[in-house]
Amino acid sequence: MATANIPTVPKTTYEDRLHRVQTALAERGVDWLLLGPSADLFYLTGFDAHVSERLNLLMVPRSGDPSLVVPLLEAPNVGAAGDLARVVSWADHESPMGSVASVVTGDTGRVAVGNHLYSAFLLRLQDTLGASAWIEAGPIMRDLRMAKDAVEIELLEIAGRANDVAWEAFLQAGPLSGLTERQALQRLVDLTLAEGVSSCWGICASGPNAAAPHYSTGDRVIQPGDSVIFDWGGPVGGYYSDVTRTVHVGEPDEEFRKVYEVVLEANQATLDAVRPGLACQELDRTARRVITDAGYGEAFIHRVGHGLGLEVHEEPYLVEGNDLPLAEGMVFSDEPGIYLEGRFGVRIEDAVVCTGEGGRRLNHSTRDLVVMG
Amino acid sequence: MATANIPTVPKTTYEDRLHRVQTALAERGVDWLLLGPSADLFYLTGFDAHVSERLNLLMVPRSGDPSLVVPLLEAPNVGAAGDLARVVSWADHESPMGSVASVVTGDTGRVAVGNHLYSAFLLRLQDTLGASAWIEAGPIMRDLRMAKDAVEIELLEIAGRANDVAWEAFLQAGPLSGLTERQALQRLVDLTLAEGVSSCWGICASGPNAAAPHYSTGDRVIQPGDSVIFDWGGPVGGYYSDVTRTVHVGEPDEEFRKVYEVVLEANQATLDAVRPGLACQELDRTARRVITDAGYGEAFIHRVGHGLGLEVHEEPYLVEGNDLPLAEGMVFSDEPGIYLEGRFGVRIEDAVVCTGEGGRRLNHSTRDLVVMG
Repeated sequence: MATANIPTVPKTTYEDRLHRVQTALAERGVDWLLLGPSADLFYLTGFDAHVSERLNLLMVPRSGDPSLVVPLLEAPNVGAAGDLARVVSWADHESPMGSVASVVTGDTGRVAVGNHLYSAFLLRLQDTLGASAWIEAGPIMRDLRMAKDAVEIELLEIAGRANDVAWEAFLQAGPLSGLTERQALQRLVDLTLAEGVSSCWGICASGPNAAAPHYSTGDRVIQPGDSVIFDWGGPVGGYYSDVTRTVHVGEPDEEFRKVYEVVLEANQATLDAVRPGLACQELDRTARRVITDAGYGEAFIHRVGHGLGLEVHEEPYLVEGNDLPLAEGMVFSDEPGIYLEGRFGVRIEDAVVCTGEGGRRLNHSTRDLVVMG
Repeated sequence: MATANIPTVPKTTYEDRLHRVQTALAERGVDWLLLGPSADLFYLTGFDAHVSERLNLLMVPRSGDPSLVVPLLEAPNVGAAGDLARVVSWADHESPMGSVASVVTGDTGRVAVGNHLYSAFLLRLQDTLGASAWIEAGPIMRDLRMAKDAVEIELLEIAGRANDVAWEAFLQAGPLSGLTERQALQRLVDLTLAEGVSSCWGICASGPNAAAPHYSTGDRVIQPGDSVIFDWGGPVGGYYSDVTRTVHVGEPDEEFRKVYEVVLEANQATLDAVRPGLACQELDRTARRVITDAGYGEAFIHRVGHGLGLEVHEEPYLVEGNDLPLAEGMVFSDEPGIYLEGRFGVRIEDAVVCTGEGGRRLNHSTRDLVVMG
């Protein structure tokens, strides 16, 4: 893949995002936003901070300039984010809470904390700062991040294309039978990395293991009669692909064919239902209706999808109880599944963007049932 | 590497660890210990839980049986840990806080929370449970985890050996000049994975980039005259190796040779100083003295080391201000460095175990200056 064609996020976009988040703080009566290393931090500043026991913390006041508290040895990593925030570094023998305290004057009022900040840091911040309330920053950041702009969607499409090309090559790369799950996954990961994603995560679950949706890939040897689920992806410019395909090794029986058709129908029905204004939970209901009507309702043991962007799982979640309306630019997975304990599982997943004309898939590899050797 | 020789942690060890942590809770007047997916959780139960927006939470009361709150779709992953704790699962459309609340009766008193639990979960727990105090579980877990038992040290040695063998092969695998940092690192990662670590992280920092200790590996092309730092490792049975070696591409000048000798001397002096009872900060002072005496004190911009085990960075930290005494079985890195901004950097790192007879290295690849093509 030609990396020269990967669009980059301009500095003005970060400035705009910081401006918008300060507006959101004012609207919600929040005085400070505190973010550790996270997609939220990357979204606002482009700083891909290192998650560790050393505190990195972006401190955004409701008005005025943000500060970025960083370990001295990681200060060189701040890069262009140093133009967006005042950098305050602390050395290993110093307390980062001293640096944090130096940024604020007086009480901090209502403080919103990033979802992924370590609890150890939150407890120390609660001891250090005289805040009147501690709240989750998740809802604030969600409102900024859920609807993707053109550059973000382009990056997600490039990432989806990497999965498409890799999957096509994988289907031609030889039989699965006799490989361990780990070996099969490694083949797919290598092919995907070759398409330009900067890292690649994945699950390979075979035979009865495919009945556990979040199975950890192991050393089971794939054999004829197995269904095999591959769920994988990687980031381009920070934005992730996330695709699942299920294949069968050797000719499947009637029940597997039926289950596969039901899952595919649910996947397509969910895609067809996408439109701005529809509540997120309606997509889950759409998929669940198809699967329940076919008699497998009890075997669809997870929500139909999750938002996709700088994180593989992010808002919006397509789950019963979430009445948030879909909006143009939202990107999410469409991944119904049926899991029959001790026997097999089927999941088919695409990344979908909500447009004014409905849902559009960001990956295009075949969803037809593939029989492999 | 023959995976058959990797020792496993028996169930009785987990039972003993849970018993010891409950004793520690009683001694410290703590009523509940709450741990999310983390090395702490893995240490107590062997459950390698998935870190995500779905809550996994081990709840250990001061006395009585622990409970494990898990997402329904991840319940199959609990495995043998299900014999150690009562498993309470919640479905995607349910609130995990309902499951948490069902485990406790009445006020929860003093609650210790695992270091790495997401802040979003802590804030929800603080809203859900009527606790009298929220404290860090770090100091409790540290006391259990710092001194490694025989099985843990054996796993760390096997992981260290993987780095040793991979490094030896890497030095024979051809010139660095002309490779990008990413390509050079990938070569080393592949060789290390071939030695049986189950994943592999790493840093390759070349030329002026080597002056940033936590540099993110990039696309700079390595060239003659560069110093190149490789800092990498991976887990065996969950326990990590962590080694750094610095090589020079082409003949180094006098200053580089001098800096390399100073760092090597500091590394050896630190190893020689290890003995039970010595304060952690004394190891940092030992290394710093050598480097300061040579005129490079300002260029040694981080602590000399960190604990190593189920995490690449864990307690004890070898840093000024930490007067914790070393004890037999503690394992930590010994990694002095000198970083000359805009020019080059040198770091030499070994994993060391504290024994009754002093420090013993867990990896053995050469620390002599290596000149590569």
